[in-house]
Amino acid sequence: MARQERAIETRRRLLVGAAEVFDERGYAAASINEIQERSGVTKGAMYFHFASKEDIARGVMAAQTEIPVGTRTHSTSPLQQVIDLTHELAHHLRTNVLFRASIRLTVERGTFQANDADLYDWWLRAFGRDLARAQGAGELREDMAPDEVAATVVGSFTGIQMLSHVLSERRDLHERLTGWWRQLLPGIATPEAAAQALPAGSPGLGLPARV
Amino acid sequence: MARQERAIETRRRLLVGAAEVFDERGYAAASINEIQERSGVTKGAMYFHFASKEDIARGVMAAQTEIPVGTRTHSTSPLQQVIDLTHELAHHLRTNVLFRASIRLTVERGTFQANDADLYDWWLRAFGRDLARAQGAGELREDMAPDEVAATVVGSFTGIQMLSHVLSERRDLHERLTGWWRQLLPGIATPEAAAQALPAGSPGLGLPARV
Repeated sequence: MARQERAIETRRRLLVGAAEVFDERGYAAASINEIQERSGVTKGAMYFHFASKEDIARGVMAAQTEIPVGTRTHSTSPLQQVIDLTHELAHHLRTNVLFRASIRLTVERGTFQANDADLYDWWLRAFGRDLARAQGAGELREDMAPDEVAATVVGSFTGIQMLSHVLSERRDLHERLTGWWRQLLPGIATPEAAAQALPAGSPGLGLPARV
Repeated sequence: MARQERAIETRRRLLVGAAEVFDERGYAAASINEIQERSGVTKGAMYFHFASKEDIARGVMAAQTEIPVGTRTHSTSPLQQVIDLTHELAHHLRTNVLFRASIRLTVERGTFQANDADLYDWWLRAFGRDLARAQGAGELREDMAPDEVAATVVGSFTGIQMLSHVLSERRDLHERLTGWWRQLLPGIATPEAAAQALPAGSPGLGLPARV
């Protein structure tokens, strides 16, 4: 491997190793030594990439914005794309330790230290844009502000995945999201759009089997 | 004070002092020495009441089920009582450090260690009962299972208060809850009940001024 490729690979291994440790223990209880051991990189290589545990945590948290999402849906309905996106994120939470750890760190730290509003803002903007497109397509009710609906969707998704984690290790997450969309759609979508939307996600979503 | 009263007062001071420290630092970073100093009780008194930091945290978390809620509403509509309850809980989150810390600990620990499902179950049962009454009164749609709606309400409330905390230190929490209920009501309530419900809570709720 060329030197640059090797550096990218080392950084990736550090982030995944750190994600495993953060996912298991949370930020405060995670030790930088354990992260280094879990990643299988040398101490020197670790400090070449990250100055501190704080720095590694920021790298892990940023990963949630780097995962390609919204790429699986084949629906042409912007509203259905939003529904599909939540199921896709649920799938990542269940299968991708880097994504799971990044959400854990955001919840643990952002919630209470109020210094990670950027990540919430990022999701609010992403959902707000999609919902504005849904309104342009006549799917979101005219009296609903896309930004307000985005806040409900981001907030509710965050809490529902937490509930699902506590009660079933997220095994019932797709089912809970489906029930939630069924309840929410009549209030935010036009009657035609609500009737056509699939709360469980598009059939062509291509997610691996839901355990 | 009689000995028993003094013991109750000491326990209360320990829980409030611990709540302040947990609310500021979270579980892992809180030290038992700081809790003791903040409470202004002796080390001996502390260990008489609580064996460990873990033990104190359990006491703080249990406090969320001991706060009298649902007592402020004067509405005779079970559905409105549910809406009022969420605004009342929001008010406690904003003004009561013991309640706020107990929710923080539940979120931090319960979410990821999956061992505090009891507290979520407690809220699910409480909301499930109220929503079943709403269905009995013809307010909840017949095709909605009260338990499923309760899961959406508990999950969404949890996440929306987190979002509000990050973005505004919960200053906009009542407003966010109002927007959320406006969006959710048409899908869960009968048309008549949805038209009559007040998403911002009953006017007679008697909460102190919303800052």
